[in-house]
Amino acid sequence: MMEFKRKLDRKFDEIRPIKLTYDPFGYSASSVLFESGNTKVLCAISLENSVPSFLKNKGTGWLTAEYALLPTSTHQRVLRESSSVKRNSRSIEISRLIGRSIRPILNLDNLGEKTIHIDCDVLQADGGTRVACVTGAFLALKRAQEKWLASGLLKKEIIIDEIAAISAGIIDGQIIVDLDYEEDSKAEIDFNFVLTQTGKIIELQGTAEKRAIEWEKFIQIADLAKKSIAQIIETLY
Amino acid sequence: MMEFKRKLDRKFDEIRPIKLTYDPFGYSASSVLFESGNTKVLCAISLENSVPSFLKNKGTGWLTAEYALLPTSTHQRVLRESSSVKRNSRSIEISRLIGRSIRPILNLDNLGEKTIHIDCDVLQADGGTRVACVTGAFLALKRAQEKWLASGLLKKEIIIDEIAAISAGIIDGQIIVDLDYEEDSKAEIDFNFVLTQTGKIIELQGTAEKRAIEWEKFIQIADLAKKSIAQIIETLY
Amino acid sequence: MMEFKRKLDRKFDEIRPIKLTYDPFGYSASSVLFESGNTKVLCAISLENSVPSFLKNKGTGWLTAEYALLPTSTHQRVLRESSSVKRNSRSIEISRLIGRSIRPILNLDNLGEKTIHIDCDVLQADGGTRVACVTGAFLALKRAQEKWLASGLLKKEIIIDEIAAISAGIIDGQIIVDLDYEEDSKAEIDFNFVLTQTGKIIELQGTAEKRAIEWEKFIQIADLAKKSIAQIIETLY
Amino acid sequence: MMEFKRKLDRKFDEIRPIKLTYDPFGYSASSVLFESGNTKVLCAISLENSVPSFLKNKGTGWLTAEYALLPTSTHQRVLRESSSVKRNSRSIEISRLIGRSIRPILNLDNLGEKTIHIDCDVLQADGGTRVACVTGAFLALKRAQEKWLASGLLKKEIIIDEIAAISAGIIDGQIIVDLDYEEDSKAEIDFNFVLTQTGKIIELQGTAEKRAIEWEKFIQIADLAKKSIAQIIETLY
Amino acid sequence: MMEFKRKLDRKFDEIRPIKLTYDPFGYSASSVLFESGNTKVLCAISLENSVPSFLKNKGTGWLTAEYALLPTSTHQRVLRESSSVKRNSRSIEISRLIGRSIRPILNLDNLGEKTIHIDCDVLQADGGTRVACVTGAFLALKRAQEKWLASGLLKKEIIIDEIAAISAGIIDGQIIVDLDYEEDSKAEIDFNFVLTQTGKIIELQGTAEKRAIEWEKFIQIADLAKKSIAQIIETLY
Amino acid sequence: MMEFKRKLDRKFDEIRPIKLTYDPFGYSASSVLFESGNTKVLCAISLENSVPSFLKNKGTGWLTAEYALLPTSTHQRVLRESSSVKRNSRSIEISRLIGRSIRPILNLDNLGEKTIHIDCDVLQADGGTRVACVTGAFLALKRAQEKWLASGLLKKEIIIDEIAAISAGIIDGQIIVDLDYEEDSKAEIDFNFVLTQTGKIIELQGTAEKRAIEWEKFIQIADLAKKSIAQIIETLY
Repeated sequence: MMEFKRKLDRKFDEIRPIKLTYDPFGYSASSVLFESGNTKVLCAISLENSVPSFLKNKGTGWLTAEYALLPTSTHQRVLRESSSVKRNSRSIEISRLIGRSIRPILNLDNLGEKTIHIDCDVLQADGGTRVACVTGAFLALKRAQEKWLASGLLKKEIIIDEIAAISAGIIDGQIIVDLDYEEDSKAEIDFNFVLTQTGKIIELQGTAEKRAIEWEKFIQIADLAKKSIAQIIETLY
Repeated sequence: MMEFKRKLDRKFDEIRPIKLTYDPFGYSASSVLFESGNTKVLCAISLENSVPSFLKNKGTGWLTAEYALLPTSTHQRVLRESSSVKRNSRSIEISRLIGRSIRPILNLDNLGEKTIHIDCDVLQADGGTRVACVTGAFLALKRAQEKWLASGLLKKEIIIDEIAAISAGIIDGQIIVDLDYEEDSKAEIDFNFVLTQTGKIIELQGTAEKRAIEWEKFIQIADLAKKSIAQIIETLY
Repeated sequence: MMEFKRKLDRKFDEIRPIKLTYDPFGYSASSVLFESGNTKVLCAISLENSVPSFLKNKGTGWLTAEYALLPTSTHQRVLRESSSVKRNSRSIEISRLIGRSIRPILNLDNLGEKTIHIDCDVLQADGGTRVACVTGAFLALKRAQEKWLASGLLKKEIIIDEIAAISAGIIDGQIIVDLDYEEDSKAEIDFNFVLTQTGKIIELQGTAEKRAIEWEKFIQIADLAKKSIAQIIETLY
Repeated sequence: MMEFKRKLDRKFDEIRPIKLTYDPFGYSASSVLFESGNTKVLCAISLENSVPSFLKNKGTGWLTAEYALLPTSTHQRVLRESSSVKRNSRSIEISRLIGRSIRPILNLDNLGEKTIHIDCDVLQADGGTRVACVTGAFLALKRAQEKWLASGLLKKEIIIDEIAAISAGIIDGQIIVDLDYEEDSKAEIDFNFVLTQTGKIIELQGTAEKRAIEWEKFIQIADLAKKSIAQIIETLY
Repeated sequence: MMEFKRKLDRKFDEIRPIKLTYDPFGYSASSVLFESGNTKVLCAISLENSVPSFLKNKGTGWLTAEYALLPTSTHQRVLRESSSVKRNSRSIEISRLIGRSIRPILNLDNLGEKTIHIDCDVLQADGGTRVACVTGAFLALKRAQEKWLASGLLKKEIIIDEIAAISAGIIDGQIIVDLDYEEDSKAEIDFNFVLTQTGKIIELQGTAEKRAIEWEKFIQIADLAKKSIAQIIETLY
Repeated sequence: MMEFKRKLDRKFDEIRPIKLTYDPFGYSASSVLFESGNTKVLCAISLENSVPSFLKNKGTGWLTAEYALLPTSTHQRVLRESSSVKRNSRSIEISRLIGRSIRPILNLDNLGEKTIHIDCDVLQADGGTRVACVTGAFLALKRAQEKWLASGLLKKEIIIDEIAAISAGIIDGQIIVDLDYEEDSKAEIDFNFVLTQTGKIIELQGTAEKRAIEWEKFIQIADLAKKSIAQIIETLY
């Protein structure tokens, strides 16, 4: 049997090279062009001077995220949501995941009655866009916090913990980390991890695509993810 | 400090009583009214003689699921989606979860070019509606398969593995299974498990609501979930 | 010529057996599972602490109704409105009919600036769902009024008259009451009556499906409807 | 007590003057500008060379109707449906009524697999727009049939009976016919009748706005409506 | 080569006969049925006692316009926007053009915090509907201003300049003005001019349909448009 | 009076520096990141193997364009169209302008039954985004044509002429070219020109914002635009 090989001689436990460009374009409070191999996402932070109605007059803030694909970010052109009649269900699910992953590490009482908008726009999609967006959104928010503290807009920090995200899964029985698009479509199982530097869990989500997976395998996948996330945080933050 | 107690003297590792009523109303191929304590969901199966366009002429079938809340299923009336302008994002996410949890345990080649629709309508919501829907949908589909095999509509079985789903999490440091609505809103973390009888993973999803969670805690949560799912499958199937 | 016969030896002037289950599921102020033969509808009452803008600051209340079919309530699965792009015109028309039928028998000044929501969800459709919803909605509202008076939420009664609803029509020249789905699709004409116990008119609506109908026939249809409604009110209320 | 008087000395049993203008503007197969007092509606007929999917390959035709208000047809500007997000429920209900009133008097087998569109646009609304649209639509269709028979597009007639429509109701205990907008808003009950020249029923719809109405009163209302419709048909057709 | 001829012996520099009917139907502040040959548009003015949120508390007013086609205004029935799921892009563009053409000639400070709505409904479309709407809307607004000044609703005039609009273009190398539908579909280029009586520019828009056009040609087109607009204003205002 | 000065000592007749980056990200047939000063737009070309229904079986192709703003492209975050209920009217108008500007310079018969999609996404908006999109779209399409000719996908060229676009207008009586956002909001008039290298007209659109403009002024504006476009084409193409 042919052994599974990764492109560019990448090792099974090796993440793709990450490149950060701060504030590449636009007028957000802060933004990051996050590149992980051929996956390229723009994560941008805006601040709105109000909160959703369920938080009115409670003295605390809110964070919400939106994820979208540029029409030509994928090999086959994606129908623009504004031109379509129905919203893209996958984008809605990922938007919720990003918001859910960032909120637990914030103290929004320190923000006051404001809403942080995270806009994640995928410029080029080669697998792992949702984890790229979580890590990129965290980095953009960290930079925005610095600016807001410097300008006096914030009195105290709102970020209380540091996170990063990565995917890991199994192809042909082999555990690998940071799947690209081609690997993703061949994977038996694919998990997304959002963890702190010490490996604590913020969000965990995964699905067996073809058959049920043993817990031992999952533990090995998780260990690889922990190691990779620690490495990302150590390198980038 | 007051110790956390569950309603009705329920133990921390005890699931709520489950009650099944097959084909309570409607004209589906098969349906189950699945009650888990005060949570009541209707899971109904329909068959359509076509497949989505991306599967046309490939000789295989498809399964899709939709989740919705009846307006009075919750303590505060839910706006009806048809009356609202925008779709409910949470319902979209759960609809995708249900479909994703059932598809890996099916051999859809044996279905031919047909689409199975799973309609999950929440009649009463007291926490854990999404896991109730996964288990209920599996049981309704199993019953539908029996009828289809009996009638000759199916030649071979399409179900290749058995699953159930449960939630588990932590309140005040205490690991508990099968959270009701009140527990859910107090939980530090809440995981949803879709597992096979032997505890293999089909789908895993969870979020720390307030702070990051240690892996040791997660393993304990998972062990409790495995035990509970084995018990559900042993009892109900 | 074969004479037309009804299922289960039902007589031409005989309504189907009615079964009421109060508060079967959900968390409304009050609800009724109304079964008329194989037609099963859930009618649920909620109260909202505001009124539409055209009634603001007028010291009076409002009542509105929504009617919807569960996807598997009919023999062929109904497209869920939330998944569809356009609203179901038939459901909109019936929603308006239900609201119009209940409002004339209420003194909404006694409600104050609140809105009563009636949610009618069809669980199983075998003809006559709209009249089942009117009668069911009235009974659920009556029960809700009792609770609101007991709790002090209401000071005075809002219901000033009692109503019920029934359909009647003609098949093969024969006048019949309470048409089921099969009869409905064969009927030459089909009328829906919303009447008080003494037979006074609240709402009347009917359409000749195939040819114009003589007034004498209509008077006979109406007499049968009056008799049946008097019987329903006498038996159930 | 002041006695109720009608504007312009109109008698209680007197309909407003009707004025017909054929093909006033537009490029329909045929159209009528139907004026009844200050109520002015345009009813236009178009033919489409296909049928809805539920009628495909059955050798018969279909008829559908749409009703809409021009923004400035009413005293307070109506929000344009295309600018609004939700469709106008009242317009949907009336659209269905118009289609339902015309279909029973047609033999659509003689049309073949085509769809007749009736567009009813209210140019000026002073009460009774829905009955004006039914009568106007019938007259426009009659004229269209003449043209289609002359051109050979139709081989046989599709219209098998003649109808007209009128409203009648009660104000201050007085039975009156053909209510204008001001009368409509004061009426205790308001019925819409679609009848043939000999007074047979095609469609009947009415609602008590304030209290239930005795059958004797309804019979008197109906008699007045029959008389008025006979007069309309005698005069106009 | 056959020389291009216009219908009804119209000369190349001759506009179609214009007919104005004030307040033909409806209840607007003022309206004009503007007919230019076979093109017939209704332009109606309404006043709303509020402004869009971006103008709140600035002491000035706003003007907005909406353009729509009646379904039977064209040779092939136009899908009604309310029945369609998506808005008509062409109608949106023309709506914006009409508002943009009228706002520069108004002093909206004299209006106070009110919004003028211009509703342009095309009753019959034979080319040039957008320019007919601009001219018609101006005339209707002028008439509305007279009424508002007379009634004291306005203290000072809001209209500060007079405009009209016309189209002009090239067919077979020949410059012509006021193209009808058939000419429009054959034109190499088609420009729309909104000018004052002395020929100053308010709005200019044109597109070469088949090939780029020399500036000399454009100047000739513009000269013809100026002459025609001067003539319209002299004749009608 | 203070004389009007441009930022960065730009002269009145000087365009902003243009920077082109081909294929910066995504998987389109070809794309250009077009930067004009601080305005940055991505123009990407995709090819679809079908045509809209009105062109089916005519042996020719089609081109369509879509324009959208990234949420953080402007100083105040733009509501994402997919999250909004209504489409952005301005974006629709500009989408139509882009398509209209490119189609006249193409011979789509040489494309066959295919549709070219132009996606223009504004990454950073500092005035003149629509003209940047037209020029960028043309350059991206030119590059795509080269690839398609090389790969044999095209047999013959489809581009038959070269165009570029620029804005020009008047501030404080001074004619200037290539307005940035701040200038745009102060302009008395603002025109957009789409011209060929020799200055022939493809599309012309402009509106006086505050008062009508003399033709002599317009001719001066146009002369400046022609000069600038000739310079752009000479420099970039």
